[in-house]
Amino acid sequence: MNNMTPLTAGMDIGGTNSVIGLVNRKGYILKETRIKTTDYPEFIDFANKVKRVITKLMSQIDGQVALKGIGIGAPDGNYYTGTISHAPNLPWQGTVPINEVFEKILKVPAFLTNDANAAAIGELLFGKGKKKKHFIVITLGTGLGSGIVVDGDVLYGHTGVAGELGHITVDPDGRECSCGRKGCLESYVSATGLCRTFSELLGVHTSDSDLRSRAYNKLSSAVIFEAAQKGDAIALEAFDITAKRLALALSNAVVVLNPEAIFLFGGLAKAGGLILKPTRKYFKNYLWKLFEGSVTISLSGLQDTNAAVLGSSALAWKELEKNGSL
Amino acid sequence: MNNMTPLTAGMDIGGTNSVIGLVNRKGYILKETRIKTTDYPEFIDFANKVKRVITKLMSQIDGQVALKGIGIGAPDGNYYTGTISHAPNLPWQGTVPINEVFEKILKVPAFLTNDANAAAIGELLFGKGKKKKHFIVITLGTGLGSGIVVDGDVLYGHTGVAGELGHITVDPDGRECSCGRKGCLESYVSATGLCRTFSELLGVHTSDSDLRSRAYNKLSSAVIFEAAQKGDAIALEAFDITAKRLALALSNAVVVLNPEAIFLFGGLAKAGGLILKPTRKYFKNYLWKLFEGSVTISLSGLQDTNAAVLGSSALAWKELEKNGSL
Repeated sequence: MNNMTPLTAGMDIGGTNSVIGLVNRKGYILKETRIKTTDYPEFIDFANKVKRVITKLMSQIDGQVALKGIGIGAPDGNYYTGTISHAPNLPWQGTVPINEVFEKILKVPAFLTNDANAAAIGELLFGKGKKKKHFIVITLGTGLGSGIVVDGDVLYGHTGVAGELGHITVDPDGRECSCGRKGCLESYVSATGLCRTFSELLGVHTSDSDLRSRAYNKLSSAVIFEAAQKGDAIALEAFDITAKRLALALSNAVVVLNPEAIFLFGGLAKAGGLILKPTRKYFKNYLWKLFEGSVTISLSGLQDTNAAVLGSSALAWKELEKNGSL
Repeated sequence: MNNMTPLTAGMDIGGTNSVIGLVNRKGYILKETRIKTTDYPEFIDFANKVKRVITKLMSQIDGQVALKGIGIGAPDGNYYTGTISHAPNLPWQGTVPINEVFEKILKVPAFLTNDANAAAIGELLFGKGKKKKHFIVITLGTGLGSGIVVDGDVLYGHTGVAGELGHITVDPDGRECSCGRKGCLESYVSATGLCRTFSELLGVHTSDSDLRSRAYNKLSSAVIFEAAQKGDAIALEAFDITAKRLALALSNAVVVLNPEAIFLFGGLAKAGGLILKPTRKYFKNYLWKLFEGSVTISLSGLQDTNAAVLGSSALAWKELEKNGSL
């Protein structure tokens, strides 16, 4: 038993696909596969499929390995309760006891959190956060998620839903948000937010843009990025406005949380010169002098890896170490 | 030695006066006195005076007591370094090694933090935060300070200056702030902020107000409170605007920190019906449904005590317990 290499499974549950990987303590993904979440309208069937997948992946690895636990990242995954409740993008109704079911089926400890928190733990164990105790990971995708690390662990808060930076109200009379309120940060700073800003700017300006011939629902951050690369002035302005909004939110997060680093992650973050560079410029202008030089903004260290699997497996490693189970 | 009652000293260093008290583990202040900070242009003379004061207070207590440590709350006091640097309101120049000097003179461990953090630790050990692990204390005085408790301890951050909620930028083009930037929360929500709002409203409205005959620099939160109590419409509106701004900032803090309670402390917080009540009303409107029912806003449990002494002594108790020194 002692010669077996310990592994954890990392699983990212998505609305369409779920990815499962087997990961060692150094953050190396030994095996990985994906299944279609929508093929399993019943959660128990999904869980049994996951078990079969893990068993198969384990058998494909040369040498002796032992599964120590499973970490799961999922939209609205709650760390404390180990459940997902009424997640709008998942096929399962009501409250799903994720941890309970997986522990019963897999006979190892299961740990759950939301995807942004998983990204933060991935950064902590396997990315640029290895030697850091206070940092923030911002995930820029369809929405804006965040995972906050305080004193070397994720800030979960009283009910397990801390770190929702995307739902800071930046303008109480602003854009409608999917959460039912108005003016949330993610309605401005996200792939969707970028499209909304771009569309508004088409109304503001009279200048030409190739994208004037494209319908709103055919816009994406990718096509706006492409246009900006070609010098489209409106696309460039949309990126600039997005970066400025992000910078202000980050400078506000800094005076509250005093982190030593902020890591940007996700599709939109990759638009390097168009997001990272202006964000840094505006951030420098906004930041209070007291914090000058104490905090950096950079791309996530997991940017080009399968961060979702790494993050959720890192959750399992982190918790097993906390519990002294290794 | 074992029959001696252990005590800690709590000291609040203020620009004009400093208060020193001897406090037992239950949060009972056995003795207390104040000295004039401005009488001691040299810090070493101040520290020696504090030593004489503590020795005298100890001798006045019936029974055997032992001083275990000293906790110090001071503007800009840094928890990590144990120093105060260039505090604009204190008589001492440069960087003052507070902890080092007191440990040498008093021969007990010394602990330093800023006044808002001290208030939060006071709440944690002796106030309404006793059984809570996640909460925020907002101090409403000349400025707006905050102390954030996460997982049962104060959030100090990377360089010891976390929790500066008063310097969140709520309007990048807004009011000038003493920090050199624009639109900080405390330039709207504080005793000073209330006066600024009131003065602006005198320009906006044409309605009568007894305070139209009073110069700007004779305004105070107290006179505006008095006017509001008498039904002055402009004073009432100034309070309402202040509460609304506070509520928005608190609802934003909640989505980031997910606390179970927010405690308001200080002179302005006492204007109960004019601050607490409308703040709760607006907060309810602003708050994201995900957090509904998970967080309360109330007055600090230390509101009518000498919270500054209790808070700084609580810091000493907390740290001595962390270090296992008791």
